Amino acid sequence: MRYSALFKEELLENVIPFWEKYSLDKEFGGYFTCLTETGEVYDSDKFIWLQGRQAWMFSYLYNNVAQKDEWLKIAKKGIDFLIKHGMDADGNFYFSTTREGKPLVQPYNIFSDCFAAMAFGQYAKATGDKEVQKLAKQTYLNILDRKDNPKGKYEKSTGNRPLRSFALPMILSNLVLELEDILSEDEIQQTIDFSVKEVMDTFLQEENGLIYESLNPDGTTSDSFEGRLINPGHGLEAMWFMIAIAERNNDTQLINKAVKTMLNILDFGWDKEHGGIFYFLDVKGHPTQQLEWDQKLWWVHLEALVALSKAYLHTKDDKIWAWYEKVHDYTFKRFPDPENGEWFGYLNRQGEPHSSLKGGKWKGCFHVPRGLFQCWKTFEKIEAEGIQE
Amino acid sequence: MRYSALFKEELLENVIPFWEKYSLDKEFGGYFTCLTETGEVYDSDKFIWLQGRQAWMFSYLYNNVAQKDEWLKIAKKGIDFLIKHGMDADGNFYFSTTREGKPLVQPYNIFSDCFAAMAFGQYAKATGDKEVQKLAKQTYLNILDRKDNPKGKYEKSTGNRPLRSFALPMILSNLVLELEDILSEDEIQQTIDFSVKEVMDTFLQEENGLIYESLNPDGTTSDSFEGRLINPGHGLEAMWFMIAIAERNNDTQLINKAVKTMLNILDFGWDKEHGGIFYFLDVKGHPTQQLEWDQKLWWVHLEALVALSKAYLHTKDDKIWAWYEKVHDYTFKRFPDPENGEWFGYLNRQGEPHSSLKGGKWKGCFHVPRGLFQCWKTFEKIEAEGIQE
Repeated sequence: MRYSALFKEELLENVIPFWEKYSLDKEFGGYFTCLTETGEVYDSDKFIWLQGRQAWMFSYLYNNVAQKDEWLKIAKKGIDFLIKHGMDADGNFYFSTTREGKPLVQPYNIFSDCFAAMAFGQYAKATGDKEVQKLAKQTYLNILDRKDNPKGKYEKSTGNRPLRSFALPMILSNLVLELEDILSEDEIQQTIDFSVKEVMDTFLQEENGLIYESLNPDGTTSDSFEGRLINPGHGLEAMWFMIAIAERNNDTQLINKAVKTMLNILDFGWDKEHGGIFYFLDVKGHPTQQLEWDQKLWWVHLEALVALSKAYLHTKDDKIWAWYEKVHDYTFKRFPDPENGEWFGYLNRQGEPHSSLKGGKWKGCFHVPRGLFQCWKTFEKIEAEGIQE
Repeated sequence: MRYSALFKEELLENVIPFWEKYSLDKEFGGYFTCLTETGEVYDSDKFIWLQGRQAWMFSYLYNNVAQKDEWLKIAKKGIDFLIKHGMDADGNFYFSTTREGKPLVQPYNIFSDCFAAMAFGQYAKATGDKEVQKLAKQTYLNILDRKDNPKGKYEKSTGNRPLRSFALPMILSNLVLELEDILSEDEIQQTIDFSVKEVMDTFLQEENGLIYESLNPDGTTSDSFEGRLINPGHGLEAMWFMIAIAERNNDTQLINKAVKTMLNILDFGWDKEHGGIFYFLDVKGHPTQQLEWDQKLWWVHLEALVALSKAYLHTKDDKIWAWYEKVHDYTFKRFPDPENGEWFGYLNRQGEPHSSLKGGKWKGCFHVPRGLFQCWKTFEKIEAEGIQE
């Protein structure tokens, strides 16, 4: 089977039906995300960023795959929940609520807000709903306002070791393209310039060509647990965000730099003993604080496939293709669950699932379908050029 | 070799020398705790609770093993660091500082304070230092003041699902015996009564005889991630704290209840497939939020050995002895490092170290030596009664 057909089938026949079937909360709106292997709800809390992600995903499918009423209805369930229960009085998004929508965990960072903004943007695009469009813009501006102190009063660090976080420019580089219809060309270019510069000139360190999670304010590395941390999946995901920006701006140089960085990250992050990409590594090879450092996570491998397929589309480089096949084989042998639908999320170092959950506090309807869609469409282009099956 | 001799040798020849040799910061005071397999310092941040724990440990050895000047000097390094750099203006203890003692992470909970109070108490006992004794008392009172809102402004939960935490009564049940010399009989009895009641009548749930990590305010269980969480190591540790209180108060009933609970926890928490005690479990068998749930941790197994040896001393029960031997064999085959000293801390589910660190952000000079000491002394009593080798 052609890769494009494989990804399309996996997306539309194995993954999306799982969420359509099991995740809808018909009583209180929004989505269940804590689902067992077979789709049973084992916890009913609503994690706001996962509500945003799923509402985004179904709006995106509507906009990019097929204008199915059913998909728009599912998206609306999340949008309504976000509007009704997601925000505090200042328009900041909670981290989580009860099933009914009572806030549980305060807005202690801006990630919930980022995915709410994405969801509002895609949904407004699908429906033309002006109110939702306004909310997208408003949430985006609120994120920019909070970006220098995203944790607010919940910040536990003193000012004695201020560190800049990679997550922010990385997420902005994706969010800005999501909100293209809503922002002015100036706003878009400003955020693109900021995030590309941060990602490629600052967090990408010349010394070893790797992306760091945290840096000193002056852009130098910090010899501390946070400062030594490498999250290969984050780096790979950011590289395909860079390629998406480069495609928009016809920037071959940016593509080449992103591709080179991908290879560096894979060389560093691949488990030479058991295969798969590590979750966390210390750049100096020291122990990490994260006890789950050696686990193999679904999203890391999907982001790698997206990054590598896009890299291949633009470079037709054999080294990239060899990596693509290696990651593809590893991933398809272990993560998908053809029997019950969706993918397993968490493998141990040896590559066996240590948890059979299909969704939880961190895994929802997002990385799997988004990654499958991106690979499907990228392979369609590659195959149209007649290069690879 | 008799068990008492084995534990004594392991403590005094394999473990304590490791910390004496590698952990002392001769330039800035206090202790390094981030040590590799062979004792090299890989990070120099000072985690205040680990500073307190090591200062406590060396004071305790001085008070209970031998009055070595060297041990008291080592304890003083930690005490001085805590006094000079550990506290904010209100007497709350930071979570961490730089090597030099500049605060890094704010006092966002009361665990640093608990271990500082223990350290001050033991050190005051060793030296008769009235200033340090006063600090112990003051820190203890501050903990009691903060106990209903231990996270203060860093609390991220809304009030919509208030949960009581097991950690607090558990730690108080140990701390109160540590500070016996400093508190009045009334104060001691009050805290003992509070914590025993909380641990044995509230957090120990009759339905299944297990200790829960979090409960609703009325003492019922909460069907939520936090509410379903079982931490077998925590439960086992608390059971030997209960036995220590029961020994003080000649309370056979409390001993019997603690022993029964231990067996329940071990039955529930033992990995029937690979051996060892799980780190976290969901009481309903659902996936936990903790990705490290299936790892086997050094402190869990040491606390189990202490609990089981004390249980055996009091009951001479065969079932307890069978469990003791099972946990002992598992533990001694995998955790100790006779080549480089100290114990490995983190095994994967299969029982192999997934990190070779001897110390880090969570592991310092505490559980291993304390557990070895407790087993040593307990087996001396068992052997004096001529029952078991």
